[in-house]
Amino acid sequence: MQFDYSNVLEERIGRFGLQQSELINSTKILKDIKDQILKRKTYDYFALNLPGIMLKEVNEINSYGEYIKENFENFVVVGMGGSSLGNKMLHYGINGLYYNDKSTRKGPKIYFMDNVDPDSNTELLNSLDLKKTMFNFITKSGSTSETIENFLLILKLFKQSNIDFMKNITITTDPEKGFLRKFAKENSISSFSIHPLVGGRFSVLTPVGLLSASVEGIDIDKLICGALKKESEINNTDPLISEAFLLPLIQYNLFKNKKININVLFTYSDGLSYIGDWYAQLLAESIGKEYSRQGEQVFAGITPLSARGTSDQHSILQLFMEGPYDKLIIFLSPYSYRNDENTGTVLNSSDETISYLENKNYTDLIKSEFLATRLSLTRKGRPNATFKVNLLDEFELGSFIYALEYSVLVLGELFNINPINQPAVELGKRYTYGLMGRKGFEKEKAEFFHLAKGKDGFIIK
Amino acid sequence: MQFDYSNVLEERIGRFGLQQSELINSTKILKDIKDQILKRKTYDYFALNLPGIMLKEVNEINSYGEYIKENFENFVVVGMGGSSLGNKMLHYGINGLYYNDKSTRKGPKIYFMDNVDPDSNTELLNSLDLKKTMFNFITKSGSTSETIENFLLILKLFKQSNIDFMKNITITTDPEKGFLRKFAKENSISSFSIHPLVGGRFSVLTPVGLLSASVEGIDIDKLICGALKKESEINNTDPLISEAFLLPLIQYNLFKNKKININVLFTYSDGLSYIGDWYAQLLAESIGKEYSRQGEQVFAGITPLSARGTSDQHSILQLFMEGPYDKLIIFLSPYSYRNDENTGTVLNSSDETISYLENKNYTDLIKSEFLATRLSLTRKGRPNATFKVNLLDEFELGSFIYALEYSVLVLGELFNINPINQPAVELGKRYTYGLMGRKGFEKEKAEFFHLAKGKDGFIIK
Repeated sequence: MQFDYSNVLEERIGRFGLQQSELINSTKILKDIKDQILKRKTYDYFALNLPGIMLKEVNEINSYGEYIKENFENFVVVGMGGSSLGNKMLHYGINGLYYNDKSTRKGPKIYFMDNVDPDSNTELLNSLDLKKTMFNFITKSGSTSETIENFLLILKLFKQSNIDFMKNITITTDPEKGFLRKFAKENSISSFSIHPLVGGRFSVLTPVGLLSASVEGIDIDKLICGALKKESEINNTDPLISEAFLLPLIQYNLFKNKKININVLFTYSDGLSYIGDWYAQLLAESIGKEYSRQGEQVFAGITPLSARGTSDQHSILQLFMEGPYDKLIIFLSPYSYRNDENTGTVLNSSDETISYLENKNYTDLIKSEFLATRLSLTRKGRPNATFKVNLLDEFELGSFIYALEYSVLVLGELFNINPINQPAVELGKRYTYGLMGRKGFEKEKAEFFHLAKGKDGFIIK
Repeated sequence: MQFDYSNVLEERIGRFGLQQSELINSTKILKDIKDQILKRKTYDYFALNLPGIMLKEVNEINSYGEYIKENFENFVVVGMGGSSLGNKMLHYGINGLYYNDKSTRKGPKIYFMDNVDPDSNTELLNSLDLKKTMFNFITKSGSTSETIENFLLILKLFKQSNIDFMKNITITTDPEKGFLRKFAKENSISSFSIHPLVGGRFSVLTPVGLLSASVEGIDIDKLICGALKKESEINNTDPLISEAFLLPLIQYNLFKNKKININVLFTYSDGLSYIGDWYAQLLAESIGKEYSRQGEQVFAGITPLSARGTSDQHSILQLFMEGPYDKLIIFLSPYSYRNDENTGTVLNSSDETISYLENKNYTDLIKSEFLATRLSLTRKGRPNATFKVNLLDEFELGSFIYALEYSVLVLGELFNINPINQPAVELGKRYTYGLMGRKGFEKEKAEFFHLAKGKDGFIIK
């Protein structure tokens, strides 16, 4: 894995660049943060210990994965946020967009139910042969509204079809607490545990993300080993030469000194671009925090944007090139791809608008476009950094995931906020409970109607 | 269609809100802009005339669409940016995520090739029976690198399979210029024209977007009629009561007076959330412009972010609630959905963490979550506006598309920039040509290697 940050430096991009010296001068701060993280690893940042812990659980997950492979045609991940974004990242990243259509596929088809959209959910459920489908309900708390709604509905559909659903369900949740854990125990349903100290957005390297990965033939052993290697590497390396410290230092300094409030993850791959959605939660939910400093309210947060090359060159690149200087662009350039094809010389055209594309590979064009786009942005003085990493290799992908998780905790320390909670989403949940008639939330219901009432005076038509 | 902007007002959200008076005081500016747009409609803003023009072409497109439906099993849209984002919006919006899996589907399966990703492209092509596949190559210029690369490769695959590819190709491009037009003429290939004055991101209501829509049974006549109705409505309505003027006025004032540089399109539907990707190009490429004002460089641009409810409540909502006050959130709330399901009372549970979800519909939960999320954001003083619109109805969707296209031109006028060009993407294209060895771009190649050479000194590992 290479991390090239030369294009965030003033000497390369001018006015919106950072000085090499300000990075070097942060050595002490980063070392303190490293110590702090090491201390907090036993509790707050427990997720950083996952590689070592999961190494022992990989066999159990793989053997259950084998059972599912042999007995089911479909595998549906039912989970919200951190209970599906990591799964999607591994699925589309390693196995591509068309895995379900592949004749060479050796496991069941994989689907994701990460919403309560009345259309897509019912359309998916209608297209599946329930008897041959394994549903993996994933919820840390055991009571996420959307996941429970889907759970109840799927139970109903099994009942209506007179299928004993107990064998078609796997539950991944807290080891002790919550409705789904109780349900699993009472009904002897297969289940996996999420360690109570591991938050949703840090849970991809637990049974949350690993079971579906195993079911679709992803080498989860390598994934964990890659993460483990990165853990040891970070621990044994000077922070200033580790991407897990340098990336957040750059993100923070650009935010603080240059008012850069948007970070783009620009991935040159269709499948791997789902890393952007996973990282969006990691960055947004970890760093987006309001707090009080010396009596004044401060609002921390960097907005993640996911872009896909080359496609988005034809959509938002114009803004990146000429719009406000409010973005750091983080390129993800894969070393290699699984496949390639050559255009051949079918037309043997003398038309120079097309002849340069004859006898060329896809990789020639996608790599040239990446290099050309990066140079153009650099010439326009736009801060950008590049991860060059073989993300199709589970070992490297595991390393990369661990490095990004670690980097977000460093960023939290730099912002001096708590990167592992998400207090603000509670308010919306309480109003939802109120509107859905849940007992104990009558006050929220009343408050909703009081506040919403008669306030629609500015509606057009 | 309703547009509720009450939650952008200071009286509702405080410090980051706008005053009703500053909106009302813009009446004169908006009226001038309306006059200006009317004048520029004959040339620069020609796309605004499309509904009237396309009404006459709908029959031809539909009859060719019928031919494709009857003769092909797969239909592949091959196009970049504006040559596929609109198609995807109509496809996923009207027909949902699982159209290709539906047994009730009456047309061919629909696929999109909007990249030169070596993996996803070859995997898609390998999964298709070429003989039964129609490829629609769409490129305004007739020479977009990615589309031509895909074109050459697909021709090669047809040749290798000894299939006469002429009947499996439809070309949508400029009526006169470019390689693909010449090729279509010389080989008598079915083709459609894009009016030379219509830019890619404004072309969804031309054969670019309408052919694939027709092939999958979308009522393109209603789509155009909806747009036509909106055109007449905008022309005959006071700007201050039209969303096509009010939305950009709000966007502009929040940018200028409150430094809000991010606009989120938060859509409560999986399929309809693709509107966000289409709108991202429209907003980013139209408004992201550098220009010189009184000798000073000014950088205009608002960064679009697409969010999907309820899923993204579990991912980026925390940032929206507590992060910097840098966002306007534009909710898209569908009136209704195609389907619904009730959870029933399978468990008859007394556990209050789940009992409130028994005997409830999907729509109960998704609508409650939308209302709860909106109120939470409003209570946190976060500017937000809501489109409540039946986007599953082609007539309303057509109206909505037209209104957003119009609104972006108004926004361009407010920013005093040219919303219909995209000059900055040329630089990257020239470097790409250089790297790919295209004749006439030797200078760019040399420049690339000169600038890139020996500058990788800050790479880690």
